[in-house]
Amino acid sequence: MIKHFLSTEDWSQQDLNQILNEAGYLKEHPIQNNLAGKSIALLFLNPSMRTRTSFELGMQQLGGTAIVLQPGQDAWGIEFESDVVMDGNAEEHIKEVAGVLSSYVDMIAIRAFPAFQDWQVDRLDHKITGLAKHASVPVINMETIIHPCQELALMMTIKNHLKTVKRKKFVLTWTYHPKPLNTAVANSGLLISSKFGMDVTLLCPNKHYLLDSHYLDTAQAQCQANGANFEISHDFETAYADADFVYAKSWGALPFYGDPKAEFEQRKQFKHFRVDGAKMALTNQAKFSHCLPLRRNIKASDEVMDADYCVALEEAENRLHVQKAMMLNLMNQPINM
Amino acid sequence: MIKHFLSTEDWSQQDLNQILNEAGYLKEHPIQNNLAGKSIALLFLNPSMRTRTSFELGMQQLGGTAIVLQPGQDAWGIEFESDVVMDGNAEEHIKEVAGVLSSYVDMIAIRAFPAFQDWQVDRLDHKITGLAKHASVPVINMETIIHPCQELALMMTIKNHLKTVKRKKFVLTWTYHPKPLNTAVANSGLLISSKFGMDVTLLCPNKHYLLDSHYLDTAQAQCQANGANFEISHDFETAYADADFVYAKSWGALPFYGDPKAEFEQRKQFKHFRVDGAKMALTNQAKFSHCLPLRRNIKASDEVMDADYCVALEEAENRLHVQKAMMLNLMNQPINM
Amino acid sequence: MIKHFLSTEDWSQQDLNQILNEAGYLKEHPIQNNLAGKSIALLFLNPSMRTRTSFELGMQQLGGTAIVLQPGQDAWGIEFESDVVMDGNAEEHIKEVAGVLSSYVDMIAIRAFPAFQDWQVDRLDHKITGLAKHASVPVINMETIIHPCQELALMMTIKNHLKTVKRKKFVLTWTYHPKPLNTAVANSGLLISSKFGMDVTLLCPNKHYLLDSHYLDTAQAQCQANGANFEISHDFETAYADADFVYAKSWGALPFYGDPKAEFEQRKQFKHFRVDGAKMALTNQAKFSHCLPLRRNIKASDEVMDADYCVALEEAENRLHVQKAMMLNLMNQPINM
Repeated sequence: MIKHFLSTEDWSQQDLNQILNEAGYLKEHPIQNNLAGKSIALLFLNPSMRTRTSFELGMQQLGGTAIVLQPGQDAWGIEFESDVVMDGNAEEHIKEVAGVLSSYVDMIAIRAFPAFQDWQVDRLDHKITGLAKHASVPVINMETIIHPCQELALMMTIKNHLKTVKRKKFVLTWTYHPKPLNTAVANSGLLISSKFGMDVTLLCPNKHYLLDSHYLDTAQAQCQANGANFEISHDFETAYADADFVYAKSWGALPFYGDPKAEFEQRKQFKHFRVDGAKMALTNQAKFSHCLPLRRNIKASDEVMDADYCVALEEAENRLHVQKAMMLNLMNQPINM
Repeated sequence: MIKHFLSTEDWSQQDLNQILNEAGYLKEHPIQNNLAGKSIALLFLNPSMRTRTSFELGMQQLGGTAIVLQPGQDAWGIEFESDVVMDGNAEEHIKEVAGVLSSYVDMIAIRAFPAFQDWQVDRLDHKITGLAKHASVPVINMETIIHPCQELALMMTIKNHLKTVKRKKFVLTWTYHPKPLNTAVANSGLLISSKFGMDVTLLCPNKHYLLDSHYLDTAQAQCQANGANFEISHDFETAYADADFVYAKSWGALPFYGDPKAEFEQRKQFKHFRVDGAKMALTNQAKFSHCLPLRRNIKASDEVMDADYCVALEEAENRLHVQKAMMLNLMNQPINM
Repeated sequence: MIKHFLSTEDWSQQDLNQILNEAGYLKEHPIQNNLAGKSIALLFLNPSMRTRTSFELGMQQLGGTAIVLQPGQDAWGIEFESDVVMDGNAEEHIKEVAGVLSSYVDMIAIRAFPAFQDWQVDRLDHKITGLAKHASVPVINMETIIHPCQELALMMTIKNHLKTVKRKKFVLTWTYHPKPLNTAVANSGLLISSKFGMDVTLLCPNKHYLLDSHYLDTAQAQCQANGANFEISHDFETAYADADFVYAKSWGALPFYGDPKAEFEQRKQFKHFRVDGAKMALTNQAKFSHCLPLRRNIKASDEVMDADYCVALEEAENRLHVQKAMMLNLMNQPINM
């Protein structure tokens, strides 16, 4: 049975905590040799800065080798559906890609954003599940419709600042952005905060901006299992009030998925969904974070981004540490802490 | 005298066999250190997945460093002709590229597909010969109008399954594909099977799909020297009958080279040139392979690709091993087997 | 105080000489281990062949790791201005890019050509200065509106051939090219030749092709401080006469900056500004060089490029050595020569 890291939903809070502890050790002792002679293929179907740098560097700091591939750009386009007559653009099927890469490398990581045409299709996350199905080595999610590596980095950052996280108030706030973005980091924000027993509030303009029911339901169930609250709010004041951690993200409204013009007509009235100092003043001296990249003065003001309470850079740095810990875990290479 | 790997035509069967033996050893013992402090530049003028991964990884598994360059994309465009007033798109001449890279690295590999405009020009393979002429380090062919690394991987795969290869029946079958592809792997299929004394059959729709006379003549001559047969067939039944190894590839018809519309009018009537279970049933329990990428249910059916007799993934994996063996050979670093 | 390598103007001739001496040592002893566990991010906002290969390889030859990023292509576009509402194309601000990369790697190098729209903006070189302002690790200039790494390679080459360089005649000659190119290497040619006390002549078609006053003034001041001459010439015969070193480069006329059509009307009458054997015959057996890439028979004739006095390949090779010496210097890792 191959261990994958596709979603934190497949992992227990206890196992994730162990990864976070090891990440803390690696933060202090970055250079290791546990993965000497091992390799990982990094498949980027979409752009990346932090993810690519942290995986490529992280693997090398563990003694291993990372190969960066950009299918459709510098490698062949990939077909992810089964039983298809491949007369479109894709030159290669995921079965062969997974099979060949599994014979070359010891892990495969993939970034595969949704197609943004039909959410009923995209919500199945068939690209990474297809890869995992056909790969004979561990597969890591570098962002699809969720972003579990970001979840680990976020929780490492939260734990560093809040110490005990249970029942602390986590606010995930939608923000304005000129484009209808992926819901991945928002979905992930709900998953990880509820898994660790935080009181979770989702703040968004209206019902059009609710996330997919799977993530709302999972968050609610996880909160309930932890004796914590899960709330949905469309009101700044109640949402920010007493918050311990504010996490911002923009995403496109799912009812208008695949129709960016109609979605924009909705969205353009919500430019005030921007995190600023006045909103942060409503909180319980909360820390603020964002997964980055972030458009300054659109999603959050310069004042917020440059404040001491902004821990977005720390979260970005933690990507390196948690991913190294995860790779060691998947390769069954415990750290001698 | 610098040793290059431009074509298997420049190498004896004996020397290639030695490479294949070393590749077999490396398959069992992948991590070596013979090329510590050595480096290779990988010039990709066209996309790649297997080639790039296997060379980059292979070099690192031998202790060395691989640098990936994509001239015209992330590096400057290159002029390959001599005595030219360079007022076109290319910013740099192959003389300087070869000279500079030779001063930086210990080997240079290049993928340079033909221009698909004039076969009388492209058949001269002037890009790689220009590079080899001006380089002062070994040059490796990563696919031009032939694909000698693929040849080695193919023969390693054939030998693994057929044990003795002499006089075994090798069928190279043309297949349909929506685009007029490079003849490189087809040319190479003929070169390597005939060099190793197999009975070679080229199966294609009609005379328009014959390969360049140089490769037909060389295959015929090599078969003859080995006491083997060389045949051209346009008939499925006789071609597949008693085959021991079926190798599939699509390519554009040379008489319509540079005129994709006219070529397509030809080609579109041959969609039945697809490898399927019924055709494979005509063989002598043949193995099937393809260089990949392969469009499923266009070039070969799912049934064939998923069958036990399909060894395409093994051939792809062998790319890693044969290329490592070749790099060691070019660097005069024998393996202590 | 973080040490950067943004411009040779920030470094003394003595310190640069020390770098050149260490580069000479590294030319003979390329494989070192001083930077084991260290890393550099290479940000390419523009294409590169030599720079990328020499930095990536150089870092690995010193035991470290290089990560290549291409913002806007395979990474997110970057905003370099402060206090901006980021509603354009850039997804990320240099503050965050610098902060995140500083937390991952030990050095950041950037290639950021000017925007070619408004020289009054571009001459401020705000991309690299913005990066250096926000980075907490050393920043290296891989070409902006100057190219200081090229300067070091050039001076290493000049010293190798002229031995004493003081008061030797250095001619920087403009050449024709089909496009209005960056003035960076030309500016740098003036900076480094004058800093080392050469007699400097700038040869260009007319006043439109004069370089920015900052570089003219700095060159003049540095020449004066060294007791050397600085001259501007529009005449081949007097400029080439008695030259000891001829350095060629094409650039766009600054008065027509951002208006390539008007600039071309100017430029097209100067196709005879091409270095050829007849011009070189006017010199004091001068060496010739160019930073590459070079369009043969446009900027310089085949005769010149293939002559013994052409040292462009040596200059290109020296890029590797000087950059390794610079990285060691910035990391405070002296070589035990």
